Amino acid sequence: MNGHVPFGVADYFWDEASRRQGLLDQLMETFRGWGYGDVIPPMFEFDSTLSAQYDDRLRSGMYRFLDRDGSTLSLRPEFTTPVARLVGARLHDWPMPQRFCYGGSVFRYLEPQAGRQREFWQVGGELFGAPDPAADAEILALTATALKVAGLTQFRQIVGHIRYYRSLLEALKLDPQQTQQLHWALERKSEPLLEEFLRDTPLRTGQRQAVETLPQLVGENVDAIFSLAERHIQNRGMHESLQNLRGIVDALTGYEIHDSFVIDLTEIRNLGYYTGVSFEAVTPGLGTAVASGGRYDDLVGRFGPPQPAVGVALGVDRLLVARQRQDGQEARTGRNRIQPALALPRGSPDALAQVQRLRQAGMHIQVDVNGWPLDAAFAYAADTDVRDVLLWEDGFQHHRRDERGDFVLLGPLEEGSLAVRMETFREELST
Amino acid sequence: MNGHVPFGVADYFWDEASRRQGLLDQLMETFRGWGYGDVIPPMFEFDSTLSAQYDDRLRSGMYRFLDRDGSTLSLRPEFTTPVARLVGARLHDWPMPQRFCYGGSVFRYLEPQAGRQREFWQVGGELFGAPDPAADAEILALTATALKVAGLTQFRQIVGHIRYYRSLLEALKLDPQQTQQLHWALERKSEPLLEEFLRDTPLRTGQRQAVETLPQLVGENVDAIFSLAERHIQNRGMHESLQNLRGIVDALTGYEIHDSFVIDLTEIRNLGYYTGVSFEAVTPGLGTAVASGGRYDDLVGRFGPPQPAVGVALGVDRLLVARQRQDGQEARTGRNRIQPALALPRGSPDALAQVQRLRQAGMHIQVDVNGWPLDAAFAYAADTDVRDVLLWEDGFQHHRRDERGDFVLLGPLEEGSLAVRMETFREELST
Repeated sequence: MNGHVPFGVADYFWDEASRRQGLLDQLMETFRGWGYGDVIPPMFEFDSTLSAQYDDRLRSGMYRFLDRDGSTLSLRPEFTTPVARLVGARLHDWPMPQRFCYGGSVFRYLEPQAGRQREFWQVGGELFGAPDPAADAEILALTATALKVAGLTQFRQIVGHIRYYRSLLEALKLDPQQTQQLHWALERKSEPLLEEFLRDTPLRTGQRQAVETLPQLVGENVDAIFSLAERHIQNRGMHESLQNLRGIVDALTGYEIHDSFVIDLTEIRNLGYYTGVSFEAVTPGLGTAVASGGRYDDLVGRFGPPQPAVGVALGVDRLLVARQRQDGQEARTGRNRIQPALALPRGSPDALAQVQRLRQAGMHIQVDVNGWPLDAAFAYAADTDVRDVLLWEDGFQHHRRDERGDFVLLGPLEEGSLAVRMETFREELST
Repeated sequence: MNGHVPFGVADYFWDEASRRQGLLDQLMETFRGWGYGDVIPPMFEFDSTLSAQYDDRLRSGMYRFLDRDGSTLSLRPEFTTPVARLVGARLHDWPMPQRFCYGGSVFRYLEPQAGRQREFWQVGGELFGAPDPAADAEILALTATALKVAGLTQFRQIVGHIRYYRSLLEALKLDPQQTQQLHWALERKSEPLLEEFLRDTPLRTGQRQAVETLPQLVGENVDAIFSLAERHIQNRGMHESLQNLRGIVDALTGYEIHDSFVIDLTEIRNLGYYTGVSFEAVTPGLGTAVASGGRYDDLVGRFGPPQPAVGVALGVDRLLVARQRQDGQEARTGRNRIQPALALPRGSPDALAQVQRLRQAGMHIQVDVNGWPLDAAFAYAADTDVRDVLLWEDGFQHHRRDERGDFVLLGPLEEGSLAVRMETFREELST
């Protein structure tokens, strides 16, 4: 038995597991604070259900297997589709809007790359039954709040609106090859490729100018982008998408976080999936987005009566890496920085009863179950970063490790002095 | 798209999801309080690894699929083997004992039965590197504490010791068919089958009496069982196992929970897996165990240097059912009993800023994103069990639903009066 795990999955333990679980809990609590209720979809379901979203890359990367009745199952590659299924198939008769949040593992088979996990954690939320810009703004503001809760101090949300580009395409009436050429230019954000497209493609003057202007519809100066874009409107769809995006930006005002937004009307990822605003959050030093989301008004209708929907998913693994790089910390692979106190009951039932009371009061205490002599116990405490040792002598005597690593007797245990409560523990882990 | 999920898995949402997640969090926090550190193994790994435990039923019920490199993977059917792999393969050089706790989904393909889920949740803990009875006692006491934390008021832990029976088998020198006959009698706890075995099988008088006595080695009177068992000892193994079990019972004294224990020396489940004490926790009105565990000193050695080990796993789904039956509650399928407050900002950025401050102070608030008129907002609040409605009029006016379901104006919002904080929420859910 070699004891390895398959490529793309990992064990997390000690400090790393606590940080990971702690971040997931914090993010979930943030969503709950905004009125999002927990939803727990299955870890796997019918492949046909999970394939209902339109992302080819996602579909081709799903882990598939056969149920014993012959149906094809897949591990969930994301949460949005299962939650949309739930709302469409079972909850469509309930009052709207409905808000749901979730957290846990998703699975994607990707080409092996450094740091690419095949099992990774997402936390996210979906808001159903709210078509107005205020709903899109809520998701954008909630994302910014969650990123701050996760400890990121520098991030940008790059906000596009897929309908602007889709309406432009309608106006241009390109053939499939021309469409592909324009996609490539925009996806690579390549001005030479865009010039090549313009050289190759006969367009009327207004249309040509609308395409030429695209690279300028990116940046922080929202008003300038809107007025430039409005000068090149070709049809009603382009006009409405700009109005919608302006409404979303306006609705962000109260949240006092609009300084983290960048507009990018050339953002065309997930062209087939999103129907309105789409965005991703990026942070310095990380090449991939830590969060992405948008409006997808067409998905719920695949499972039941249609519902407008907007949502976001945050990548817990990437957030952990981003925070670590930001804080300049090296990955810690050692034990917990703060270990629970070590109590030596030395055969006394009274000592165990006292430990139980301390635990009920919120203390984290491990008990010596090996019947160690004192030197072995203190050696274990030193080796495992235990800070407090409680030695039973008709009552617990409290020894604490000093800065040089030596244990010093503080005297009889006073409960307040034993500060290894979970709150402290979490705080210290997150700093 | 039919919107169904495969047999054996389910969506959890609203109240049910909160109760489930809340129970998992409470149980994990209990293990942490005893010094157990979080471990997060992969959701799937090599089939050969997960098959290293000796439970045939578990092995035949695993969900298997092929990795794209051709290796066979399985969804984890339990946590003990992955954690034992981690300790054996990677952590054997670290100081012992090591304590780990975990919580999450496990997967077992079982024959369809009412209420049998194929994805269900376990929470558990494993204690490595501690061979003494104090370690077994810790796991038993921790299990009892966790069951109380889960809200169970009536439960029993049925405690056996597989080595007693295994040593008896050595003394009896039965052929395979005779062994099987004895197994059946004990597994079914059938005295007629045991008498049949005794009729069919030639045994020396002492041996015969040892077998005849087995059904009496079950009950709450620990001292009586021990002295009876000691009179029928056939070899050193039987003697040592009794001494070990007596040591475990003695070590439980300080925990003041020994009244919930029942000894059963005929308990022979998982004969190949456990090496010492084994137990399961049962509760009235539920036909299956809510927790089970024991000592398994042979498993870590399959992945690295051997280590003594003892642990327990609790079934979250079964605990939820047991608690519901105990409290006489019907399954709730409706919305959360307490919904977050509903705030109507009525287009004011100041209102959104105020909502943000309230959320930071721990309040759970959903914002109207549909731009409702007042009657629509109050109708939604009434339909979705919202208790508090905050209406912006240069400051939030606080409306609360009274016992008849009507909303009454309390006046300007005082933060303390808006009690939908998570702590309250959890408490009310768990009562």
